[in-house]
Amino acid sequence: MIETVHIINGPNLNFTGKREHQIYGTENMESIIKQLKTQFPMVQIHYFQSNHEGEIIDYLQENYEHFQGIIINPGALTHYSIALLDALKSINCPVIEVHLSNIYQREDFRRISVTAPAAKGVITGFGKYSYFLALQYLLYL
Amino acid sequence: MIETVHIINGPNLNFTGKREHQIYGTENMESIIKQLKTQFPMVQIHYFQSNHEGEIIDYLQENYEHFQGIIINPGALTHYSIALLDALKSINCPVIEVHLSNIYQREDFRRISVTAPAAKGVITGFGKYSYFLALQYLLYL
Amino acid sequence: MIETVHIINGPNLNFTGKREHQIYGTENMESIIKQLKTQFPMVQIHYFQSNHEGEIIDYLQENYEHFQGIIINPGALTHYSIALLDALKSINCPVIEVHLSNIYQREDFRRISVTAPAAKGVITGFGKYSYFLALQYLLYL
Amino acid sequence: MIETVHIINGPNLNFTGKREHQIYGTENMESIIKQLKTQFPMVQIHYFQSNHEGEIIDYLQENYEHFQGIIINPGALTHYSIALLDALKSINCPVIEVHLSNIYQREDFRRISVTAPAAKGVITGFGKYSYFLALQYLLYL
Amino acid sequence: MIETVHIINGPNLNFTGKREHQIYGTENMESIIKQLKTQFPMVQIHYFQSNHEGEIIDYLQENYEHFQGIIINPGALTHYSIALLDALKSINCPVIEVHLSNIYQREDFRRISVTAPAAKGVITGFGKYSYFLALQYLLYL
Amino acid sequence: MIETVHIINGPNLNFTGKREHQIYGTENMESIIKQLKTQFPMVQIHYFQSNHEGEIIDYLQENYEHFQGIIINPGALTHYSIALLDALKSINCPVIEVHLSNIYQREDFRRISVTAPAAKGVITGFGKYSYFLALQYLLYL
Amino acid sequence: MIETVHIINGPNLNFTGKREHQIYGTENMESIIKQLKTQFPMVQIHYFQSNHEGEIIDYLQENYEHFQGIIINPGALTHYSIALLDALKSINCPVIEVHLSNIYQREDFRRISVTAPAAKGVITGFGKYSYFLALQYLLYL
Amino acid sequence: MIETVHIINGPNLNFTGKREHQIYGTENMESIIKQLKTQFPMVQIHYFQSNHEGEIIDYLQENYEHFQGIIINPGALTHYSIALLDALKSINCPVIEVHLSNIYQREDFRRISVTAPAAKGVITGFGKYSYFLALQYLLYL
Amino acid sequence: MIETVHIINGPNLNFTGKREHQIYGTENMESIIKQLKTQFPMVQIHYFQSNHEGEIIDYLQENYEHFQGIIINPGALTHYSIALLDALKSINCPVIEVHLSNIYQREDFRRISVTAPAAKGVITGFGKYSYFLALQYLLYL
Amino acid sequence: MIETVHIINGPNLNFTGKREHQIYGTENMESIIKQLKTQFPMVQIHYFQSNHEGEIIDYLQENYEHFQGIIINPGALTHYSIALLDALKSINCPVIEVHLSNIYQREDFRRISVTAPAAKGVITGFGKYSYFLALQYLLYL
Amino acid sequence: MIETVHIINGPNLNFTGKREHQIYGTENMESIIKQLKTQFPMVQIHYFQSNHEGEIIDYLQENYEHFQGIIINPGALTHYSIALLDALKSINCPVIEVHLSNIYQREDFRRISVTAPAAKGVITGFGKYSYFLALQYLLYL
Amino acid sequence: MIETVHIINGPNLNFTGKREHQIYGTENMESIIKQLKTQFPMVQIHYFQSNHEGEIIDYLQENYEHFQGIIINPGALTHYSIALLDALKSINCPVIEVHLSNIYQREDFRRISVTAPAAKGVITGFGKYSYFLALQYLLYL
Repeated sequence: MIETVHIINGPNLNFTGKREHQIYGTENMESIIKQLKTQFPMVQIHYFQSNHEGEIIDYLQENYEHFQGIIINPGALTHYSIALLDALKSINCPVIEVHLSNIYQREDFRRISVTAPAAKGVITGFGKYSYFLALQYLLYL
Repeated sequence: MIETVHIINGPNLNFTGKREHQIYGTENMESIIKQLKTQFPMVQIHYFQSNHEGEIIDYLQENYEHFQGIIINPGALTHYSIALLDALKSINCPVIEVHLSNIYQREDFRRISVTAPAAKGVITGFGKYSYFLALQYLLYL
Repeated sequence: MIETVHIINGPNLNFTGKREHQIYGTENMESIIKQLKTQFPMVQIHYFQSNHEGEIIDYLQENYEHFQGIIINPGALTHYSIALLDALKSINCPVIEVHLSNIYQREDFRRISVTAPAAKGVITGFGKYSYFLALQYLLYL
Repeated sequence: MIETVHIINGPNLNFTGKREHQIYGTENMESIIKQLKTQFPMVQIHYFQSNHEGEIIDYLQENYEHFQGIIINPGALTHYSIALLDALKSINCPVIEVHLSNIYQREDFRRISVTAPAAKGVITGFGKYSYFLALQYLLYL
Repeated sequence: MIETVHIINGPNLNFTGKREHQIYGTENMESIIKQLKTQFPMVQIHYFQSNHEGEIIDYLQENYEHFQGIIINPGALTHYSIALLDALKSINCPVIEVHLSNIYQREDFRRISVTAPAAKGVITGFGKYSYFLALQYLLYL
Repeated sequence: MIETVHIINGPNLNFTGKREHQIYGTENMESIIKQLKTQFPMVQIHYFQSNHEGEIIDYLQENYEHFQGIIINPGALTHYSIALLDALKSINCPVIEVHLSNIYQREDFRRISVTAPAAKGVITGFGKYSYFLALQYLLYL
Repeated sequence: MIETVHIINGPNLNFTGKREHQIYGTENMESIIKQLKTQFPMVQIHYFQSNHEGEIIDYLQENYEHFQGIIINPGALTHYSIALLDALKSINCPVIEVHLSNIYQREDFRRISVTAPAAKGVITGFGKYSYFLALQYLLYL
Repeated sequence: MIETVHIINGPNLNFTGKREHQIYGTENMESIIKQLKTQFPMVQIHYFQSNHEGEIIDYLQENYEHFQGIIINPGALTHYSIALLDALKSINCPVIEVHLSNIYQREDFRRISVTAPAAKGVITGFGKYSYFLALQYLLYL
Repeated sequence: MIETVHIINGPNLNFTGKREHQIYGTENMESIIKQLKTQFPMVQIHYFQSNHEGEIIDYLQENYEHFQGIIINPGALTHYSIALLDALKSINCPVIEVHLSNIYQREDFRRISVTAPAAKGVITGFGKYSYFLALQYLLYL
Repeated sequence: MIETVHIINGPNLNFTGKREHQIYGTENMESIIKQLKTQFPMVQIHYFQSNHEGEIIDYLQENYEHFQGIIINPGALTHYSIALLDALKSINCPVIEVHLSNIYQREDFRRISVTAPAAKGVITGFGKYSYFLALQYLLYL
Repeated sequence: MIETVHIINGPNLNFTGKREHQIYGTENMESIIKQLKTQFPMVQIHYFQSNHEGEIIDYLQENYEHFQGIIINPGALTHYSIALLDALKSINCPVIEVHLSNIYQREDFRRISVTAPAAKGVITGFGKYSYFLALQYLLYL
Repeated sequence: MIETVHIINGPNLNFTGKREHQIYGTENMESIIKQLKTQFPMVQIHYFQSNHEGEIIDYLQENYEHFQGIIINPGALTHYSIALLDALKSINCPVIEVHLSNIYQREDFRRISVTAPAAKGVITGFGKYSYFLALQYLLYL
């Protein structure tokens, strides 16, 4: 049974709730993380966000032996960061890729996920619930 | 609060558990539906499968005023059925698109979902849990 | 002089008037067919709709010796049904392809008609009048 | 009720009946316009043809406040004249794009209409009757 | 040694001999099947044709444990039916894809076979003899 | 120090202020030229507009020895007029390409400028100020 | 035996010798035409140049019954003028397409000739001799 | 009735049985030809193999008046040798293109046959039996 | 009236004047900023440069409530940084994208600006004056 | 003044006059060469043909110091032989590429000439006169 | 004679030996650098690794006047970092791009090197020996 | 320890030093091979060059059991010879692909190596040293 989960957010996701409300909703990530902790008190949730591709890779490497489950929303990096793809491939625990919005309803370049082949699966389009479902999945294991 | 959910499966999903185990796993859909009913006793689950694009559209149209939530795995139709896309667009309740396998880890032509723009969101790659999570989402609403 | 006309509608066109009003208008097909019969009392109008590619092909084959003129709106099949293209090629009487909306004002994938090479011509964008004009053309012959 | 209609023909359509009979038929445009006037005596028909993209745009601009209905066959300009597309977008009355031949049965580059998004609809493949039907449509309004 | 063979034909192949003679020849399928039975009296030949993608998949699934050898001409489905590809992948006996005409001598979109990766091999262009050769191959096994 | 500037506008730019206000604004070109003259009294401004590709090339050739600076908004010709590209290449004085709207925020085909390689630089998206800035640049030289 | 030849030059070819010497050489068209007349005194040479696609089409149509041989250098129109292609198709006498420079040694978009399918043949890359050779060919007939 | 057949193999097919067994099997061509002769004693079989595109074309030209039937496996030349395509077009007797492996199950560039339009038909994927079936077909004629 | 402007430069722009002089000129950015301050003494100019995509996004987020006007030259990030595009979309003040060189005169991959849709407009090709003009524009507002 | 010319023909051109008369005419190359010698008695004509890419390159290399002018019809090699392109680039004398048929009126893959960038110019579509004109050009020099 | 060499590794190369052994081998970079120092005692080897595109560019800029030779393995940045391409272009000493694995044997997107045009050459596929050979080359100079 | 190495050069590499010096340098292959022998006296070097794709494949097949190491520069065949790719796949000893020039700095079509997937690795851009390094690698083994 999984005991800790790392949630990793990529560029601009710290601005969730501040920008483009019609796409990303009005709740900010702090509030979402808080709700996750309330909803899933049985797991310890570690949250990390960075606008730097390199910092996310550093973070993955530094902790790669301690991960039990990763929920990652790579933000825009989803669509071009082969470096992140490679980093995720080194991780042995389950990786879940999530997106707040449905990437199939936006610009063409957002329909392609470069990072998804390194994930167990992808959950896209459910707003904050994308995170909830990802966590739920890890608890099913 | 949602009371009934319709789970709709497209072509060849009735063969889940019979074919290509390394991709789709070994459990069959009857078993998966049964587990869903056990896991979510508070909702009534209707299950429909067809190998016919037309029958799925018929089914969607016949029931379109009674749907509260739809979980659809269009199978191979995901990648070319514009007719199914159009049918799903007529549905007012939330539609969740699910896939057993991670469509980003297979042939190139499976990376494109033609039907996804008509869905609230997509859950792909979690085996039977793709259905579990979709149902969980509907209960969050 | 033509005496009977067959109007054949593809997937989801039975939902005309029920869905996406800004694209397809608010009148349903029953009403449109009725208006056609009033407007063109000199021809017998047969109406057939199906959400099944196969049923439309069956219908074309069963009646193919009795057709004098066909007005077909293949709906979404327009864009991928090579099988329908082949079936229409076997028909000797004039075939008119019609669309309610202007296919050039929508998604890119709707700009290509796979079936049009088998038609005498195409009328697209005039709402119910696309059918009126097609029938008018058959009467000109 | 519409009282005047402008029919505008693009490059080479003044050679209809002179060239490539198997594609465009043997009747010339003068004859076709004459038949249109006979068939639709209730509207005043203005006819304009030019081989110059610029002259067609000039004509559209000079008369743009007096148009009640436009039937335009842009000829080869259909496939590349973004300038004509822009000019047509400024017109408030209904614009019908017509073609003598079925553009879906010819070279690949003729399948794309650059100008069609500015039209109410498109009628293609009915020879002279493409004009008849367009005019008929304007009278339905 | 194989005892029964299933020949499965897709959309419009029931019209072989009725349409487009220069491409498909003038003999109809009944006659071809009869000749096959005469030529190969040592095997029992089951013939199935449908214009419905779904029915072909149903047929494959219903009989999938009893097939010893399948000869399939998917007709136009060859070029877009990923659902048929998936159904054929579940079959354990040898599957031979055949075509009456040489698909390399026709429209560009007919050069791509979506279903062929699920077949043992493809025989294309020999008219009725495509079926003869496929059957001959099954007897070589 | 530059003494005269030629401002050349392509097709439909004489309709600025009359059409599609949300894209091009509500001021017409006469007013914009007037403001330019007020703002930059030290240069003589020549203004030329044509809907004809050929007339713009004629104009460039007739005056090509007298140009000190050219500000050109080719309108829709930007996207396909290789002839205009060639004509601009013959000009020795600085050529500035301007656009009222940001061509990166519109249809895909407007993102490509065929003529820009013949320009010193491009200013796009600032409404009338695109002209102001171009003129300002010429005065910096 | 041919008695008159029409040489038709498209946009910017009147600037031959004035611009881009490394590509087009330093002799102007007047001089080249003069040399042609000296070299081929047995034919009457008519020369026409225009920067207007429309004027070239007009010219072709006005004289189309009197042409015995046409040498056309469409300039940049080579690469996009489908209208010129259509006009040339109406001409019954031999049409030779010529280019001063070798279109295979320049930008990618100059490698495609839209107009060439309407010509008997193409001569590209020999500077003024492209015209000489074209005329020579017409005299061979 | 055909009396002689020429079997022509392209580059590397002399290494059949030596290399890549999982794709091409373990029998060598000498053995396969021998089996063909045993199986079809009523025809004289001429076998020719070359790694040189030019030699294959030479061979086709030298014997082109004596061919009654050709079975050709162009090997890798299948995918780029337009010269071989042209040579095959000059042959009047039936040409059968064969492949040992199913070209639809390999790299993308092997799915396209450049030479197939010059063949009567193509047989691909049946190992040595591809040759058997081709010969069988020639005997059906 | 605007009081402060932030100029943000992306990767390698700190090497302006040091590298590839024929493309970027010989003046360095310090000198250019100094000239800007002299030319526009009425605004306070903040200058920020980074080779890190993440640092530029951090900078935009940290200051996003205090920006009155932004001039950004994303350097190479222009062509692939969707993360920067997203960050710029959150900014409410006018954003001007500038480039030293004319991106239409360089490699193909530099013709596409991924970030431009988030800008008010783009100024490209005027060397240091691209910055001057951008600042001038902000003062026009 | 040039004294010797080498005419080099690629694959299948030795079959000119034997095959596909509607494309290549009915005269064979021997006859054409003979006519060339009669027409141009002042130059010595060397003729070489091979179906082997390698032999043509060998021939070019062996004689490369003695060439005064080369007329080459690479046949199908035109469209894919980068090796021939490279060989031709080593030649210092003028190289003229010729084709019997107009490559713009045939299959799409014949519209691209890989070898043309190494030629002075290209003459395509004039049957045997393509050679005549090429030789004429060399005599103009 | 070169005295110092800088070896620069991009994202995830610090995980060499830890991940995906079948692609990258089992030795880690520390060991490889050590072997390099033993093998090439006559040069001073500086090693730098970063997961940050920006840090690599910073490093290149800070030391750009002291480099005598650079061996760079950009890792995944190879395939999209135009910023790194630009930074490498500013370097005057020889730059060698190396890869552990053969980039031509992996996913399609790894076959394209965006950075290679800025390198003297590329060595790919020799595991640790790619570094050895690069260093050897620098010593040849 | 390896005792013999075969160096195989493709089309036009026998002209190294004679042509296009700015790309391939001024030393000829004989001189380079001589230097290699001096530099690496411990291995026997066999050198083979041919302009014929077929001869290179013949050579590979004839010696395939005796190869210990192959260094191949396929020249232009690199970019289209699938036959050479197949031949190289049959070789069991290490194959090194080399190029004199950096294929990433030339025409687009030279960036793709068709043959590289059959090689252990690729060394491109180091002039004669590409061969030196390849040989060095074989000695490391």
